[in-house]
Amino acid sequence: MKVGFIGLGAMGSAMASNLIAAGHSVTVWNRSGAACAPLASLGAKVASTPDRAAQGDVLCSMLANDQAVREVFLEHALLDAMDRGMVHVNHATISVALAQELAQAHEERGLAYVAAPVFGRPDMAAAAKLNILAAGAPAAIEKVQPLLQAMGSRVWPMGGAPERANVAKIAGNFMLASAIESMAEATALTRAYGVGAADFLEVMTNTLFAAPAYQGYGRLIAEQRFKPAGFTLPLGYKDVGLALAAGDAARVPLPFAGVLRDSLLEALAAGDEELDWSALALVAARRAHLDER
Amino acid sequence: MKVGFIGLGAMGSAMASNLIAAGHSVTVWNRSGAACAPLASLGAKVASTPDRAAQGDVLCSMLANDQAVREVFLEHALLDAMDRGMVHVNHATISVALAQELAQAHEERGLAYVAAPVFGRPDMAAAAKLNILAAGAPAAIEKVQPLLQAMGSRVWPMGGAPERANVAKIAGNFMLASAIESMAEATALTRAYGVGAADFLEVMTNTLFAAPAYQGYGRLIAEQRFKPAGFTLPLGYKDVGLALAAGDAARVPLPFAGVLRDSLLEALAAGDEELDWSALALVAARRAHLDER
Amino acid sequence: MKVGFIGLGAMGSAMASNLIAAGHSVTVWNRSGAACAPLASLGAKVASTPDRAAQGDVLCSMLANDQAVREVFLEHALLDAMDRGMVHVNHATISVALAQELAQAHEERGLAYVAAPVFGRPDMAAAAKLNILAAGAPAAIEKVQPLLQAMGSRVWPMGGAPERANVAKIAGNFMLASAIESMAEATALTRAYGVGAADFLEVMTNTLFAAPAYQGYGRLIAEQRFKPAGFTLPLGYKDVGLALAAGDAARVPLPFAGVLRDSLLEALAAGDEELDWSALALVAARRAHLDER
Amino acid sequence: MKVGFIGLGAMGSAMASNLIAAGHSVTVWNRSGAACAPLASLGAKVASTPDRAAQGDVLCSMLANDQAVREVFLEHALLDAMDRGMVHVNHATISVALAQELAQAHEERGLAYVAAPVFGRPDMAAAAKLNILAAGAPAAIEKVQPLLQAMGSRVWPMGGAPERANVAKIAGNFMLASAIESMAEATALTRAYGVGAADFLEVMTNTLFAAPAYQGYGRLIAEQRFKPAGFTLPLGYKDVGLALAAGDAARVPLPFAGVLRDSLLEALAAGDEELDWSALALVAARRAHLDER
Repeated sequence: MKVGFIGLGAMGSAMASNLIAAGHSVTVWNRSGAACAPLASLGAKVASTPDRAAQGDVLCSMLANDQAVREVFLEHALLDAMDRGMVHVNHATISVALAQELAQAHEERGLAYVAAPVFGRPDMAAAAKLNILAAGAPAAIEKVQPLLQAMGSRVWPMGGAPERANVAKIAGNFMLASAIESMAEATALTRAYGVGAADFLEVMTNTLFAAPAYQGYGRLIAEQRFKPAGFTLPLGYKDVGLALAAGDAARVPLPFAGVLRDSLLEALAAGDEELDWSALALVAARRAHLDER
Repeated sequence: MKVGFIGLGAMGSAMASNLIAAGHSVTVWNRSGAACAPLASLGAKVASTPDRAAQGDVLCSMLANDQAVREVFLEHALLDAMDRGMVHVNHATISVALAQELAQAHEERGLAYVAAPVFGRPDMAAAAKLNILAAGAPAAIEKVQPLLQAMGSRVWPMGGAPERANVAKIAGNFMLASAIESMAEATALTRAYGVGAADFLEVMTNTLFAAPAYQGYGRLIAEQRFKPAGFTLPLGYKDVGLALAAGDAARVPLPFAGVLRDSLLEALAAGDEELDWSALALVAARRAHLDER
Repeated sequence: MKVGFIGLGAMGSAMASNLIAAGHSVTVWNRSGAACAPLASLGAKVASTPDRAAQGDVLCSMLANDQAVREVFLEHALLDAMDRGMVHVNHATISVALAQELAQAHEERGLAYVAAPVFGRPDMAAAAKLNILAAGAPAAIEKVQPLLQAMGSRVWPMGGAPERANVAKIAGNFMLASAIESMAEATALTRAYGVGAADFLEVMTNTLFAAPAYQGYGRLIAEQRFKPAGFTLPLGYKDVGLALAAGDAARVPLPFAGVLRDSLLEALAAGDEELDWSALALVAARRAHLDER
Repeated sequence: MKVGFIGLGAMGSAMASNLIAAGHSVTVWNRSGAACAPLASLGAKVASTPDRAAQGDVLCSMLANDQAVREVFLEHALLDAMDRGMVHVNHATISVALAQELAQAHEERGLAYVAAPVFGRPDMAAAAKLNILAAGAPAAIEKVQPLLQAMGSRVWPMGGAPERANVAKIAGNFMLASAIESMAEATALTRAYGVGAADFLEVMTNTLFAAPAYQGYGRLIAEQRFKPAGFTLPLGYKDVGLALAAGDAARVPLPFAGVLRDSLLEALAAGDEELDWSALALVAARRAHLDER
């Protein structure tokens, strides 16, 4: 297929590579041009403006957040420049509110729209092992299925309303944050009685919690290795904010999210903006003044 | 070895069976005698009083809670009746405070004491697949190692102070409760946007959270199947209380445990005492008044 | 002085009346014209557009929220239409972020700006008994002092940066919400033991808590009289949101505000949008299932 | 009347003095005898054992906590030594559970029992300005009314079941703790924007919150004067624990109490055991890292 790809961060670059490797004709665009070169060397065409990437069968985008998506698609009016008949596949983790606004904006312009946020870090994106949530009109999803399968190990259909994929992604990230906080508090407690975080988490992450989320973040907490960050505290704070905003709009109280908000905020107040969000363990330890014992 | 076993609930019975199967000479006692018969038919001797089980090499006990342990060992003075040289292996989930009190009471009497709480339900106990946390004097742990291995798939050493195994068990149960609450809140959120709990949890429990804790409780939440309970709300409330009490004594704030306390209390106020603690999902849904939408 | 007054809700109308009564020449404007008639009958001139009210010495505005202030002053560009040399006195309860944006927008246009949010209900506004927080350039505050004194019983200087008055107003409303929630929880507790809310609150509001905030809301809780609302749940929810947003921007965790957010959200999920925010007492009672006992 | 008085801390001494001043014949006892001398000089008889104070018409007691009350009345069996026909007036702040246990213990022995916890500090006790909550059998309350009036400015009847006075006292202290925490968080927020605690609290405690609770603790927060403590953090932590325990037994979720518990625990973890509980303001400021800005 003829595919445009916008947004070449670590995730987007890896995803676009896999589309090229799968034989699709890919045209890339990125705000800062430097990210385009490696993809060009793999065979991508490089567009000088986003509009030039918005031609063909499908436009994929993997932008950083609400603001970037809003700027490119709504304010800079990329939506108006897209070929009628194109499907836009939006991989970004965005708010439910923006997801709903985008769905309507596409519909008004007769454009097909698929929300397809992903679970997975850059290394999983490179290995085409992402888990992709997909929501939108069935025909549109069917059309882009080969692309999604080229980028992920599995595609999870979430229904017809695009925002459903987004709320699932947001709820999933909330579960991740909760898992981290629960390890943070649990290890603060065991440490106060002389059981180190590594010893305790070795048990848990090899038994009841033998899952990637716990094993990955558990290792960082056990080793107190919060730098370099895989996912920074400010990004985690933003994502918990998306959960709270979604709960706000739909009138769903989320007490764990409230605790997470305060813990993340406390970490940011401490100036730990560059640390991985598993540094919630530092906050829990600090509250108990463990390092002064 | 010559082993006494006290406390023949679903867990204790299965554990004692495995000791018999491993060739040990087992004498059992239980408050209500009916539970003894099946073990007698497997070859156990039945003691008419707990004192008679307190003779031989090792005394294992699997009692329900602090109160039961306190009554049998301290108030009814079983500790005073035990053979000197015996090792007491206490499998119960008890408070850190009682664990410390018991450690001292054993030491004063020259008795060896091993705290060995377990992770696993009765079916895992029957299959000898428990995960056993063990803390106590190294020589004592070494002595009872064959028994522990006959009951569990793995023994996790937690150090020399017995209460360390207890705090690890308590912290583990706190992590379980947190996992349930996070699924409860996350599914309340997705449901409000039209994504059913089953659809959402299928993604999560097959990917980032592909672990027994999430898969087991996730299924109950997805199917809204809270009866019959594997682990009731009052038991969950008791265990979160153990975490709070341990945090209290060691000055460790646990904000997630505070939320859990209130959510479980709300479930109990609703009269749901017989439901599984995954019924925290009902509380989250009720707060959002999802069923009235 | 020659004063324009924009925003004639219950509060604004009462405040403008007092300016007229104090002998000032007042020109009023309101989105829906009907509110202008009573003031015209007191001697006010009625402007057909907001621009016409933006001439003279001082422009007072009392609009409902961020959105209304943003529309009138920034989007409809009233700021550009104001007489240079005029002082704008903004009485609205707005976010700290908008307060900062407005301060800068005024400065860029050479306009003097005073933030002057108030504490008090319409009956206190009518009696000129408001407590007025005032922040801005000293010269500007001095110039408008006679106006503020005509509307309030006391003016509390909050410093030179306008947003300081706004953050104080937001923090004050947060304290009000906290006072209500604490009465809601306390009375849920006493009721469960047979002490009615009225009996308990009579003690508290005549002794340690003998203050207007507790006496006013305490009476509503004691009498379960949440309709008609003096201040609705959605307004309370908005104001707690302003506190959370201010904490967010300045990295200040506010755990009480997180609880308030969830409690208010739960009230809104129950469909109680028209009730007074003291109906937080209904939420606390519902969580304990008191009415089913 | 012939009155025994047990427990001569700062509160008890002042209360007993007022009974003497009102012309009653008072016999005092205290664990450490030194506290008896000043009362003897006012005319009290000094009992060498608590039993000797338990004779006459009424026995008042003002002991520190559950443990002290339990030891003196239940374990040392003072209840068994009391004259039949005597009324026991218990002024201590104790748990609802102990209150219920005591009510039953008195009833079994045919002793009249009045729970009469008080609001007020030692200076108010000395001035006979306490607010006294009283619950118990009407005839007993009527009998001791002259004593209560000699010690307090007002007696608030709370019904026939003694624990009702205790739950009201506990709920009142919970409201005090909530008031302190709300000021702690509110001032952390205003300080982050440059409005000092003193400036902000001056407004609040002279307007909406012009009540003793806010003025007293507000002054300590404004002046950061947490030593010497009027009421220490550990005492506050104990009292919030009483609220949580009462909520626990009656199935009443108390989310504010959960936050208070964690904040007080964090203060204790910091080693601030000797500070006044208004030092919750330090915790709120520390979470926002205000002093590092």
